[in-house]
Amino acid sequence: MSVAPRPHQAMREGAEFDTIRALMARWGDLAVDIGDDAAVLAPPAGGTRVVSVDACVEDVHFRRGWITAHDVGVRAASAALSDLAAMGARAECVLIAFVVPDAWRDRLTDVADGMGVVIRAAGARIVGGNLSHGAEFSITTTVIGAAARVVPRSGARPGDVVVVTGVLGGPGAAVRAWEAGEHPTAWCRARFASPAPRWAEGEALAAAGATAMIDLSDGLAGDARHIAAASGVRLVLDATRVPVGPGVPVALAMQSGEEYELLATMPAAAYEPLAARWADVSSVPLSVVGYVDAADGASDGTSDATPSPPAGFDHFALRPDVR
Amino acid sequence: MSVAPRPHQAMREGAEFDTIRALMARWGDLAVDIGDDAAVLAPPAGGTRVVSVDACVEDVHFRRGWITAHDVGVRAASAALSDLAAMGARAECVLIAFVVPDAWRDRLTDVADGMGVVIRAAGARIVGGNLSHGAEFSITTTVIGAAARVVPRSGARPGDVVVVTGVLGGPGAAVRAWEAGEHPTAWCRARFASPAPRWAEGEALAAAGATAMIDLSDGLAGDARHIAAASGVRLVLDATRVPVGPGVPVALAMQSGEEYELLATMPAAAYEPLAARWADVSSVPLSVVGYVDAADGASDGTSDATPSPPAGFDHFALRPDVR
Repeated sequence: MSVAPRPHQAMREGAEFDTIRALMARWGDLAVDIGDDAAVLAPPAGGTRVVSVDACVEDVHFRRGWITAHDVGVRAASAALSDLAAMGARAECVLIAFVVPDAWRDRLTDVADGMGVVIRAAGARIVGGNLSHGAEFSITTTVIGAAARVVPRSGARPGDVVVVTGVLGGPGAAVRAWEAGEHPTAWCRARFASPAPRWAEGEALAAAGATAMIDLSDGLAGDARHIAAASGVRLVLDATRVPVGPGVPVALAMQSGEEYELLATMPAAAYEPLAARWADVSSVPLSVVGYVDAADGASDGTSDATPSPPAGFDHFALRPDVR
Repeated sequence: MSVAPRPHQAMREGAEFDTIRALMARWGDLAVDIGDDAAVLAPPAGGTRVVSVDACVEDVHFRRGWITAHDVGVRAASAALSDLAAMGARAECVLIAFVVPDAWRDRLTDVADGMGVVIRAAGARIVGGNLSHGAEFSITTTVIGAAARVVPRSGARPGDVVVVTGVLGGPGAAVRAWEAGEHPTAWCRARFASPAPRWAEGEALAAAGATAMIDLSDGLAGDARHIAAASGVRLVLDATRVPVGPGVPVALAMQSGEEYELLATMPAAAYEPLAARWADVSSVPLSVVGYVDAADGASDGTSDATPSPPAGFDHFALRPDVR
């Protein structure tokens, strides 16, 4: 257990503390060490400790007419925890800062329930937070975890294959439908409303030797550019290999953000044994969608070392913009 | 150093990343390990790791006409870091999540500068954050530190003295003046605009044997009730001993929030040697403002064990509301 076993601190009377007590009642044993100025963390159970923060703002990350308050909580927790999955880390602790307008007061327990479902599934605990009034509803979620092997964005090497988990395009197609005044398909809506961080997949990819990893929050094309920029390489994607959801155009699937699937690079020799046992890791597919090439002009004349692309790859080149 | 020495991850093009690069340029070597999905934390240099989160929202925690954008940053960082001081902890790492309306874009570097001044003075580093658009400006700050000895809110024991750092009432008097359309005095304005977390004081109080500690964010009377509730005791304060700023009524000083001074309890035998060397610890005063009594009805007939109050104490009793 990565949280020091301190009891909650008893809280005094007052509307703010009543709200905190109501949230704690919803969360039960999911929340620990609440009510002091700070929470105490025990050393990580194993590996390297990592930390990240993510915000979810009404009318920026979602609109009220699109999803329920419970869904809002699921998405906020998933988005934050997905950053740990992308490091190959297991979640340990979460801190939740709410900014709550009057119109959201009655919905807060539903939001808390949605966050609780995801945090409990991740095996983490809620160890602190903040509650503030405000005109615009937002949730800022801090997540702390531990990685047996940290996978950065910067480790992609020429010759690696590029792999992605899951089936893409649902969130992008859902938003496009809502913005056009239409109803998304049930599959697309669920992919937007109830994303699932890819814990087991992230740990398995890290253990198998992934060289770079990121979660898909900006979309496959955009997030591939993040890896390319951080690694000083070029990612060559084959649009025909991108796993797309039912009825979703591939171009939309490549731009669809907030997927919370994982994009990783790894040597082909590491990919092959992982692929052979992938069905034991996850129920979502793992697809090779491209390969890593040297950055243009960055190879110092060693371009003959650039691997030949596997047969069937179109050169849908994503150029790095930062060397 | 409590941050793993990983380099920044190079970031791709785009307006969001340009803003992050601009913030990083302002912060220089204050920011480390930026640009990955999560930051890597090394084990604490010593002691127990603690974590807290705090939010600062426009028109809730401040108004634009009152203070500069630089002040907004100073206050936000101070409020968050003060929670670590209240645990007896030294700050190590900070993560900053901004929600930024268009009107605040040009002010963001001034806010960042203000936060940077405080974080640098604390000896901490910025290891991550989040940048989101939104209609209402807010800063949610996560702080991670290490305590040689953690001081909770719950350790106050009958017979302890109650001490407070600094001189109170400035922030409350400043807000009262602004809300009345008047100008606060320079001293009161500075106490609101530029609070200083009490690092050295918190560490010294913890090392000297403080039994409970909290930072004054809700005001002396309210925060004393937090300790009373968490500890299951009664704090008896003497209003005549409260150190008040120039021209500030004592009743206002007792309610004045966002002081970010420290309120602590400790045995008199621990207080006396600390008081004797306090001038070596801090330039702000340390004042005894009361004592700890058993909670009414909670002493199981041992009320004869209740200490007699020191001479001169008025019984301004702050009753615990949670047993």
